[in-house]
Amino acid sequence: MKDNLQLRDGKVILSEEPLVLETPLENLGEFITPTKLFYVRNHFPIPTIDKSKWRLRIEGEVDKPFEINFDELTRLESREIPVTLECAGNGRRFLEPKVKGVQWNIGGVSNAAWTGVPLATLLDRAGLKSSAIEIILEGTDHGLLDDPKAPRGEINFARSIPIKKVRDVVLAYQMNGVDLPPEHGFPVRAIVPGWYAVASVKWLQRIIATDKPFNGYYQTLDYSFWKREGDHARLTALSDIQIKAVITSPAEGETVAANSNLRVRGAAWTGHDEIIKVEVSSDNGSNWKEARLMGESKPNAWRLWEFNWQAPAKAGQATLIARATDSAGHTQPTTRDADRGSYMINHLAPIQVDVR
Amino acid sequence: MKDNLQLRDGKVILSEEPLVLETPLENLGEFITPTKLFYVRNHFPIPTIDKSKWRLRIEGEVDKPFEINFDELTRLESREIPVTLECAGNGRRFLEPKVKGVQWNIGGVSNAAWTGVPLATLLDRAGLKSSAIEIILEGTDHGLLDDPKAPRGEINFARSIPIKKVRDVVLAYQMNGVDLPPEHGFPVRAIVPGWYAVASVKWLQRIIATDKPFNGYYQTLDYSFWKREGDHARLTALSDIQIKAVITSPAEGETVAANSNLRVRGAAWTGHDEIIKVEVSSDNGSNWKEARLMGESKPNAWRLWEFNWQAPAKAGQATLIARATDSAGHTQPTTRDADRGSYMINHLAPIQVDVR
Repeated sequence: MKDNLQLRDGKVILSEEPLVLETPLENLGEFITPTKLFYVRNHFPIPTIDKSKWRLRIEGEVDKPFEINFDELTRLESREIPVTLECAGNGRRFLEPKVKGVQWNIGGVSNAAWTGVPLATLLDRAGLKSSAIEIILEGTDHGLLDDPKAPRGEINFARSIPIKKVRDVVLAYQMNGVDLPPEHGFPVRAIVPGWYAVASVKWLQRIIATDKPFNGYYQTLDYSFWKREGDHARLTALSDIQIKAVITSPAEGETVAANSNLRVRGAAWTGHDEIIKVEVSSDNGSNWKEARLMGESKPNAWRLWEFNWQAPAKAGQATLIARATDSAGHTQPTTRDADRGSYMINHLAPIQVDVR
Repeated sequence: MKDNLQLRDGKVILSEEPLVLETPLENLGEFITPTKLFYVRNHFPIPTIDKSKWRLRIEGEVDKPFEINFDELTRLESREIPVTLECAGNGRRFLEPKVKGVQWNIGGVSNAAWTGVPLATLLDRAGLKSSAIEIILEGTDHGLLDDPKAPRGEINFARSIPIKKVRDVVLAYQMNGVDLPPEHGFPVRAIVPGWYAVASVKWLQRIIATDKPFNGYYQTLDYSFWKREGDHARLTALSDIQIKAVITSPAEGETVAANSNLRVRGAAWTGHDEIIKVEVSSDNGSNWKEARLMGESKPNAWRLWEFNWQAPAKAGQATLIARATDSAGHTQPTTRDADRGSYMINHLAPIQVDVR
């Protein structure tokens, strides 16, 4: 983990085209991630959009399809919510054997305050038909896919959500109190709280109600997993964020003084429930002690935590593991489920520090 | 096409494990394909099943799940229907550039008389709930998949059909008047008329009503195609057989006498409609003449046809193309749609003969 990392505006460059930037470890310790340090995961070039010409169309299985412009949208009743977004492949670097895809360390996650209009407001105005089973969120970003199994020709980035998820979704035009920057979806991105960030489509241009499963590329051949059911497995679009705690300080490989009192810090988050406990083990999981949860619990946002640790008296390697539990009783698996492919990486991930 | 073909019981061996056998050209010219010449496409080793111990379970979204044995099943009211089954990859040998998968010539298709019990009879007895949206047909055959994107661990072969397709399906225990042979699904296979044969699951062991899309391996990562819709493409399970005419005589590369009167023969089939016309062109598609349709039209079975052709007076290469049209106005495309991947191969396929 002591590579020479290429940085841009303080973020680690994982890919230039498409742009993928990771939030460095030391910036995961604040409740609100500053916008310029918020991780970036794009799939196509960033579209250049003129806010005054931008239109969002609401169509498909609705009684009255319509278009709305930016001024009209921002005059509607809005709400501001802190929401943690995590890339579904965050932590991929820890998978053994190595798998293809962006090699995220733990920083494919950030938390911001999002201001926007509830998706339900627009669907109510359009008159959603009872035939609609999913809502497709379509971005302006588009291109060709480098995958022989993908559709031929260009596609737009798009993701669908089931009708029952609509009430959670906000169409955000501000991030931490100001306009979205281009790389985060200017002028409007969907925020789908509790779901992996792939669903929070950037550069929104269309909202399409559909009467059949969407099954687009980014929820079938990509960003999906196998849900095992006895003799079968169903290819399932990634959705709910899986519970996870990360240690943000000390860093993997950091040197700590023997016998010193150390403050171990981290963050923990889960899909739809509340983080109620974070525990830390310094003996490879034989014993666990509770960490202190900081601040207040907010739905769909991470919870910071701290733990006082006395480093061993003897020099050598020491191991720290954090484990979160939520109000629904979810906790982190100790081993990896291979049917998750290269996604939903939340098994226990020990870090090692050098005691000197 | 003049390779040294390895034969088994008159069929061309395309693969030993799993067993894949192609019906030779000369046997595509009879309305009923003799059982021993009927093409074979398996995915796992053939299960050994004791008919006296075999049970079929009907379960899932039903009021009264139950099991039925072979004697009980065959005492129910049955029907016999001629149904043409075609492998969704039939004709793959004609794709340019070459694609992976079984390299079928035109003989991944056959027609048999199937005797069995309507699927609806069993679902009525079980009391299908209104929550059911699909019926999963599960085979006894199972194994590991050689695909890094596939589920880990063994799966059973399985395919689903939507509720609206149920009324067409027969659970067949006889093929051409006698018990199914092991390679064709003994003791019972589903027959899904009008659909590519992948849906006609062999060695049936379970019928599961489900309230959510099945999305199993054989209808997502395999046996699927991209249905393009403007900016998007939906990953869609292969279902309806696409209209197609093949020339079974003369064979590709066969020598014919200059100026002779030749009978060109073939078969034509389509998904759910009726073949109403087959045309032949001997000038690369500039002019088309109608062929004679033989016998009676039967739903979901192929139609044989003949065409009298006067071979050119001059020695050289001559080209023949057949083209079918059905009662819904479908006809064969002249070029290939790349979003079909390596499936649904029904574009016009000229054959060449040597005129001497």
